[in-house]
Amino acid sequence: MERTFEQNLDAYAHLIINTGCNVQPGQELFISSDIANAQLVRLLVAEGYRVGASNVTVHWTDEQVSRMHYDNRPLEAWSQFPEWQAELQNGVARRGAALLFIDSEDPYGMTGVDPRKFAARTKAAHEACKEWRRGMDFGLNVWCIVGAASPAWASRVFPDLPVEEAVGKLWDAIFATVRVNTPDPDAAWMAREKDFKRHVDWLNGLGLDRLHYTNGIGTELTVGLNADGLWEAGGGYTKGGTFFFPNMPTEEVFSTPDRERVDGIVYSALPLNHDGTLIDRFWVRFEGGRAVECGAEQGQEALQSIIDTDEGSHYLGECSLVPKESPIHQSGILFLSTLFDENAACHLALGMGFPECLKGGLDMSKDELLAAHVNQSATHVDFMVGTDDLTVTGFARDGREVPIFVDGTWAE
Amino acid sequence: MERTFEQNLDAYAHLIINTGCNVQPGQELFISSDIANAQLVRLLVAEGYRVGASNVTVHWTDEQVSRMHYDNRPLEAWSQFPEWQAELQNGVARRGAALLFIDSEDPYGMTGVDPRKFAARTKAAHEACKEWRRGMDFGLNVWCIVGAASPAWASRVFPDLPVEEAVGKLWDAIFATVRVNTPDPDAAWMAREKDFKRHVDWLNGLGLDRLHYTNGIGTELTVGLNADGLWEAGGGYTKGGTFFFPNMPTEEVFSTPDRERVDGIVYSALPLNHDGTLIDRFWVRFEGGRAVECGAEQGQEALQSIIDTDEGSHYLGECSLVPKESPIHQSGILFLSTLFDENAACHLALGMGFPECLKGGLDMSKDELLAAHVNQSATHVDFMVGTDDLTVTGFARDGREVPIFVDGTWAE
Repeated sequence: MERTFEQNLDAYAHLIINTGCNVQPGQELFISSDIANAQLVRLLVAEGYRVGASNVTVHWTDEQVSRMHYDNRPLEAWSQFPEWQAELQNGVARRGAALLFIDSEDPYGMTGVDPRKFAARTKAAHEACKEWRRGMDFGLNVWCIVGAASPAWASRVFPDLPVEEAVGKLWDAIFATVRVNTPDPDAAWMAREKDFKRHVDWLNGLGLDRLHYTNGIGTELTVGLNADGLWEAGGGYTKGGTFFFPNMPTEEVFSTPDRERVDGIVYSALPLNHDGTLIDRFWVRFEGGRAVECGAEQGQEALQSIIDTDEGSHYLGECSLVPKESPIHQSGILFLSTLFDENAACHLALGMGFPECLKGGLDMSKDELLAAHVNQSATHVDFMVGTDDLTVTGFARDGREVPIFVDGTWAE
Repeated sequence: MERTFEQNLDAYAHLIINTGCNVQPGQELFISSDIANAQLVRLLVAEGYRVGASNVTVHWTDEQVSRMHYDNRPLEAWSQFPEWQAELQNGVARRGAALLFIDSEDPYGMTGVDPRKFAARTKAAHEACKEWRRGMDFGLNVWCIVGAASPAWASRVFPDLPVEEAVGKLWDAIFATVRVNTPDPDAAWMAREKDFKRHVDWLNGLGLDRLHYTNGIGTELTVGLNADGLWEAGGGYTKGGTFFFPNMPTEEVFSTPDRERVDGIVYSALPLNHDGTLIDRFWVRFEGGRAVECGAEQGQEALQSIIDTDEGSHYLGECSLVPKESPIHQSGILFLSTLFDENAACHLALGMGFPECLKGGLDMSKDELLAAHVNQSATHVDFMVGTDDLTVTGFARDGREVPIFVDGTWAE
């Protein structure tokens, strides 16, 4: 099965619009992208209109210009979110648009920027874009994050290759992880969805009270689970009943922990690239759900800054299971992008939890969710904990002990 | 004097920010550009911050995406202007930003689009962006339009050249017209400003009541001038006292006619490219200021659609004098862009007049301006009337007859 690059890009655009976003006739489509991805974006706009979108709004950004903003504007400027951008984001969310994000950032493009500026920006955006957040967090809007091989990103992943070759190689890797290298990528995703459902149904049927993580690098962590908690994977439904895939690629089966019942220590399995700063060989210790201590051989300040974003960023919002057979893990490529790397290994996330991972959660207010121990925060930062020797043991509410992961993969 | 392309682009960015926009410390800067011009835009953002801009907002567009919008969205969609974009434009205007526009459009990029969609869009923008329009029309904001050689535009100007060569040649032409090919471009612009002032002072001292245009292709037009009318050229001042150049390049000396006293017929000297449609070999007949009849060998429908945009677009808002020695005329290049081509020949414009061309006009309301015979409209479309044999005779209010232009150039 050999396609030209243009044919692959066409197939990718088709997959994103039809299966990722599942854009409906008459619906709006919002696309956020760096200008480096214009070729893909134009195909997406064309496909969006082809399937009947009433309007497609492209919000272009340029990473080099963004960097100049961060370098030149003082910290206090970042606690103000532009009104026009809030209106743009809230407006499309309010009108039920499909929200599509093209991720192509240079993993080190923001290296050296004061991390407090990002934290201030995140907080300000959270305040200003309430309808936008609600639309994504509470299943009102479909949303989808996909990758694109920008020259800046590709050069970081393959630093020894000439830039054009690096871009080609990163595109090939992206196409493989999203199954664009199969005869019918849209069908492949729907088939994959059945595999996800098998693991999700198994986990949801176990009546788990908590998970216990252990491995050879020192992790000894207990993660409590809500009695009404749900495991999810692959695609999901909006409250209006539209099926979509929030992430492409995706290999994870995930839930939201009980924010008050996380105890022990967890060590990172992969470096974390956060807003351009690399945080490596780090650990976090939890007591009663709260991150009370952390350490890092590299990027300690940035790690502390993530944890200190707000009160909720001291608690876990996600626990995800990814077997070591994941094609992203098998590719051996460190993508330096959470969208890809989080699908290479089991991970946890500090910050915002998932309402859809609690029965009835999509109909609850933020206060109700918090009362039900689903974490609330302006941020959500994944970090990888899945080593090839990771064991995850489940403890059911009826007392049973169930192996979930053994040696880094599904126990069944 | 040989500079590399990068040196020229640097000098151009310096000229635009410092002399064109005259950006002040603490001021905001707004830049609107196609993504094709990223290299120039990044230099402009950097220079903006270097001179102390408090924030630089870049509004990116992509012509290919814009074309898809026009092809796919129905006429009725265009009478709604996006709220976020109104807030973006009104917001920067309200906060006193310098407004910078990079013009690089494919002259035929919109060929075939229903012209009523552009008219609807223009009208909707005019309604929605009141503070924005006020900022530019009434001297509150500095604003500056400059060119950039996009591949799409360059390929139209030099259709027989390979695209890279066409881009290089168009950049060279742009650099020459804005005097970036001189040792100190910023100083060259301030020197040129003195030449403008000489002609402006002469015209303003004549006490002109009307101009009479005649040439060999049939033009016989009388253009009335307001007793309180003013001629302007080159740079201007905001009400706050900041000196700026609204257009780069500029070769024109211009005023606003008495909207009620335009009579006769005028023939086009150059084709008019309007929103991607070429209008060629056309004429317009005026009675009591109003365009009552028009004809075109090509693009008649588009011409009629311009005139019919609103009531004000039936009247003249501008009369401009450009001698045939203009470097743009001498270059022999048809740029297919009003910004450049209007500086190749004498021209008139249908639509919005210039409040700054009436004594006290910047302090008048739209109603007061209309009462003073300064035209008001949602649009402003230039068309070229200056042939090499054009004669313009002035009739002063004291009865004197004064030659203004003879054989296409200044009579003195």
